[in-house]
Amino acid sequence: TKRYSITLLPGDGIGPEVISVAKNVLKLVGSLEGIEFSFQEMPMGGAALDLTGVPLPEETLSAAQRADAVLLGAIGGYKWDKNEKLLKPETGLLQLREGLKVFANLRPATVLPQLVDSSTLKKDVAEGVDLIVVRELTGGIYFGKPRGFGTNEKGEDIGFNTEVYSTHEIDRIARVAFEIARKRRGQLCSVDKANVLEASMLWRKRVTAIASEYPDVELSHMYVDNAAMQLVRYPKQFDTIVTNNIFGDILSDEASMITGSIGMLPSASLGESGPGLFEPIHGSAPDIAGQDKANPLATILSAAMLLKYGLGEANAANRIENAVLDTLNRGFRTGDIYSTGNKLVGCKEMGEEVLKSV
Amino acid sequence: TKRYSITLLPGDGIGPEVISVAKNVLKLVGSLEGIEFSFQEMPMGGAALDLTGVPLPEETLSAAQRADAVLLGAIGGYKWDKNEKLLKPETGLLQLREGLKVFANLRPATVLPQLVDSSTLKKDVAEGVDLIVVRELTGGIYFGKPRGFGTNEKGEDIGFNTEVYSTHEIDRIARVAFEIARKRRGQLCSVDKANVLEASMLWRKRVTAIASEYPDVELSHMYVDNAAMQLVRYPKQFDTIVTNNIFGDILSDEASMITGSIGMLPSASLGESGPGLFEPIHGSAPDIAGQDKANPLATILSAAMLLKYGLGEANAANRIENAVLDTLNRGFRTGDIYSTGNKLVGCKEMGEEVLKSV
Ligand SMILES: CC(C)[C@H](C(=O)O)[C@@H](O)C(=O)O
Ligand SMILES: CC(C)[C@H](C(=O)O)[C@@H](O)C(=O)O
Repeated sequence: TKRYSITLLPGDGIGPEVISVAKNVLKLVGSLEGIEFSFQEMPMGGAALDLTGVPLPEETLSAAQRADAVLLGAIGGYKWDKNEKLLKPETGLLQLREGLKVFANLRPATVLPQLVDSSTLKKDVAEGVDLIVVRELTGGIYFGKPRGFGTNEKGEDIGFNTEVYSTHEIDRIARVAFEIARKRRGQLCSVDKANVLEASMLWRKRVTAIASEYPDVELSHMYVDNAAMQLVRYPKQFDTIVTNNIFGDILSDEASMITGSIGMLPSASLGESGPGLFEPIHGSAPDIAGQDKANPLATILSAAMLLKYGLGEANAANRIENAVLDTLNRGFRTGDIYSTGNKLVGCKEMGEEVLKSV
Repeated sequence: TKRYSITLLPGDGIGPEVISVAKNVLKLVGSLEGIEFSFQEMPMGGAALDLTGVPLPEETLSAAQRADAVLLGAIGGYKWDKNEKLLKPETGLLQLREGLKVFANLRPATVLPQLVDSSTLKKDVAEGVDLIVVRELTGGIYFGKPRGFGTNEKGEDIGFNTEVYSTHEIDRIARVAFEIARKRRGQLCSVDKANVLEASMLWRKRVTAIASEYPDVELSHMYVDNAAMQLVRYPKQFDTIVTNNIFGDILSDEASMITGSIGMLPSASLGESGPGLFEPIHGSAPDIAGQDKANPLATILSAAMLLKYGLGEANAANRIENAVLDTLNRGFRTGDIYSTGNKLVGCKEMGEEVLKSV
């Protein structure tokens, strides 16, 4: 029997509901694949703020650092929206990413044939979309210094941040993206704003240099404003996209909405070594929290990414992915992806149906 | 007779074709409304680089500064893509915006009933979309200092830029946006990343403060990643959007593609005083340049914005807008907005049909 320790961070809103379902799926799949998981639940985000006064307690970070992988539900809610920066749930998430050194954020956006009607895009535009955004996650304007508040030479108050990338940071995220593109359709599109920003000029230069290590991957470059358009115009043109932290934040959310089913989309955040961080890309949805309405499939699929990218357990991962597809084929749908003719279920029941399909 | 001097900057690619058509429309409308225009054509962008070695010659900037309004075609092309920063056509455009101090960029995105099928969004999602993005244009990461290249403490090469906003810059763009929202449906959505960036925290604070001057306008706030999703999910929720330079660059392009007819979309850039800058939002489209295939309607509608926002000539502006609608109703379409049953025309012929409709 293989043994792995998983830190679970349920977080806020619908987080606890979807994590509890995903945990059951991991357990069952583990028992079938000869894997034993030990789970440790730790507070994070608003839940941790209420409990301990900070959004990422030291105990939570060190438990996560010691684990083999970390599965996060969702964080944030109206209650903490006006908190000052250090006391925002979001700050806890940024500290967790930094603390785990997970610089590569993988966000697949796939339109499943079963759910193509959920997209607001016309069927012929949406069907067959299968792309992944590789977002740099621990650099750029999110972490760059100097940052803060001050006054300018005219005596006016200012707020400022620094967008900064080093060759090292660009090279390592580029390599992750080239590796992924190589295993997919061999096309990598690097998105930047190199016609204006120096940070982007260096980005483009380094990505172009790294391309020589991957002669089998076709590299193209696109400005971020054009990429935002092309995702709406003809999303099928994209295979693998690599971009910086802030552009990746915007474009991966846009791409996920193009699939029409963000309740389905997982993500993985990986470092050079150490545990990866896996989470659904949807938020904490405070409006439906505690009502058993959430779609747990994004978290279940995040657990599959955890098995595949975090633990190298590809068979167990495939088992989960197939179970999710089978559950959809059997017509089960939560409210967010419901269409007439299907069976409307809640979060728990969806989880039970996935267990049956495993 | 009223007299106005207009600086025309045809620029690159399809720029000269669309400017020549828009000039004829301005002339005719002027003659009908008792307005006399004097036009001065000046080189700009790649055309200026080839002619003078710089993308914005001093003569061009000072002609533009002395004019009553400036109408720009488009700039850029493959030929100059690898130029160093100071010799990029785009740098000329940024210098022009800075030199004219046009801090407020207005980018309407409207889905015309005649063209709803051009959108890649489902008909019920696209129809009725009528929003405007008010983008801050002379501040933020586009112009912030320090910027450039250097090395970090580890000796690695870095590229860096500064996102910075002052209270003065935020207040003035907020007021422009509130004024516009007030004349529209009274809803202003301010887009930022205040959960992460200090520059955005100040942005949100000042926009909220300015709101007290406009009790008749309903203000909401949205994070930029969510805005990128909501534009795809349910674009009709937006009336007026106000945001910073880089987020405005991305979101306005996304919004324009949602209409499905970026060949139709004009823009206006305005300062506190002095001439405004008016231009289609589409680019220079080098692949179809010189082939009489370009859609001149975005430039013609930019001329209408020039009349309305730049010269206060609302009647003349309406005349142009009505002529464009009439031409569409009569079934004339350039290739980019063509659908079966309509009449396919080139750039010049489209211009002639608009002249007939004026
Ligand atoms: C919550 C927020 C800080 C975060 C981000 O901007 O990275 C979120 O939007 C995401 O994409 O995971
Ligand atoms: C050409 C480029 C510098 C410009 C910008 O980023 O502002 C363009 O994309 C635009 O939106 O007008």
